[in-house]
Amino acid sequence: MSKLFVIKIGGNIIDDEKKLSSFLQSFASIKNPKILVHGGGKLATQLAEQLNIPQQIVEGRRITDTETLKVVSMVYAGYINKNIVAQLQSLNCNAIGLSGADGNVILAHKRNHPSIDYGFVGDIDSVNKTLLQNLIEQNISVVFCPVTHDKKGQLLNTNADTIAQEIAKSLSGLYDVELIYTFEKNGVMLDVNDESSVIHNITTEKYRQLKEEKKIFAGMIPKLDNAFAALSSGVKIVRIGKAEELDQLINGKKGTLISNES
Amino acid sequence: MSKLFVIKIGGNIIDDEKKLSSFLQSFASIKNPKILVHGGGKLATQLAEQLNIPQQIVEGRRITDTETLKVVSMVYAGYINKNIVAQLQSLNCNAIGLSGADGNVILAHKRNHPSIDYGFVGDIDSVNKTLLQNLIEQNISVVFCPVTHDKKGQLLNTNADTIAQEIAKSLSGLYDVELIYTFEKNGVMLDVNDESSVIHNITTEKYRQLKEEKKIFAGMIPKLDNAFAALSSGVKIVRIGKAEELDQLINGKKGTLISNES
Repeated sequence: MSKLFVIKIGGNIIDDEKKLSSFLQSFASIKNPKILVHGGGKLATQLAEQLNIPQQIVEGRRITDTETLKVVSMVYAGYINKNIVAQLQSLNCNAIGLSGADGNVILAHKRNHPSIDYGFVGDIDSVNKTLLQNLIEQNISVVFCPVTHDKKGQLLNTNADTIAQEIAKSLSGLYDVELIYTFEKNGVMLDVNDESSVIHNITTEKYRQLKEEKKIFAGMIPKLDNAFAALSSGVKIVRIGKAEELDQLINGKKGTLISNES
Repeated sequence: MSKLFVIKIGGNIIDDEKKLSSFLQSFASIKNPKILVHGGGKLATQLAEQLNIPQQIVEGRRITDTETLKVVSMVYAGYINKNIVAQLQSLNCNAIGLSGADGNVILAHKRNHPSIDYGFVGDIDSVNKTLLQNLIEQNISVVFCPVTHDKKGQLLNTNADTIAQEIAKSLSGLYDVELIYTFEKNGVMLDVNDESSVIHNITTEKYRQLKEEKKIFAGMIPKLDNAFAALSSGVKIVRIGKAEELDQLINGKKGTLISNES
């Protein structure tokens, strides 16, 4: 099987024109098949403010009412997605920007939560591998925005980390998938304030220990849980590290490697 | 060769939720391969107003400065495009929403005009047939928003009528292409105020006569010029008529048929 990279880029890189441009250059230079998943950044919040749409964030998720969904679809699926695609095209990387509604590629349902109404937030049910494989075979890199649909006509705001994870899992039967989470830190760190305290390798056993000893920053736990869930569903390797160092992250010189092997 | 419909839907239908929904039901029910091209509608103008971005329209084209391009990419490529795709998916029509940057499918250049600076308005250079043909073969209907790119990283606001025409022309060697322009009127009319004065057939010769006798409403001339240009580039038939009557427009019971044959 050939190697496939599924790479998530976080919002704070998208907000920084220079960092984004440098990241996209690294992404475009990857010779293997590759998929990019981008988050939202501050632009949606800014636009909502300008339009006087009150925003409410609960446990890291944006409560998505009708007006907020409109903002999300405009900023994520429109402005950010198409600008990333246009930049990649200029770097001779043939990219195609999709939401989960396009080609019915990510089917989701409106989140059902016992106490919080998240509004139009989607949890993923399935990924359409056929279209993705077909695009990969045409040497086209898909760029996903964090928007899915329910196939009943409703768009849904969906966590980009989860999209990356589900895409990676679904394609793991067809490719050797490496799932890369990039963000503003050097990797998973023992001390959140010390960028040199990156943990280079985390296995299931080490993760259990680190959690027991409370050495993992709480904010990293959902990311790591996602990573191990991906590994147990067939993804070969997960890496977490700095977006500006994508080259070294991919070749293992920087960042945190998460794997089942010790 | 199999038949392919390239259908343009105008802005005033997009602005009307009920009319749009009815149009999309007709579109979804077409058994042949089909491509949809949508315009912008009032939403971009409304958003620009809300964001205090002054808008200037010269000869029917929006002068597109940086801020207006942002609005255009948000509204056209994001909100409108993804909502149309989600609605078509709910009607079991497997749609994929693209800008010209996606898959490098429509390459354009910034308009060069001797006296007017249109800003980021694009004129089309070429259409990538390979990707379109591949999607058609997967029974996927492409939904185009009126945004293209220059492959140098710049998105460009591009006339939807022209996109429909260029797509139709480029695919005419591979399919028997019917190009359908839908708008708010019953068709091309002898008297612009009389909806019953629809001209059922226009040939090249008849068009010449009608123009000579000044019986064609000035606003229709660019549309008809586009139609004849498409015909002379291999498109089989052009039809112009009411969006709400797409079924009867396609089967020739309503609207204006434009062809080379008398």
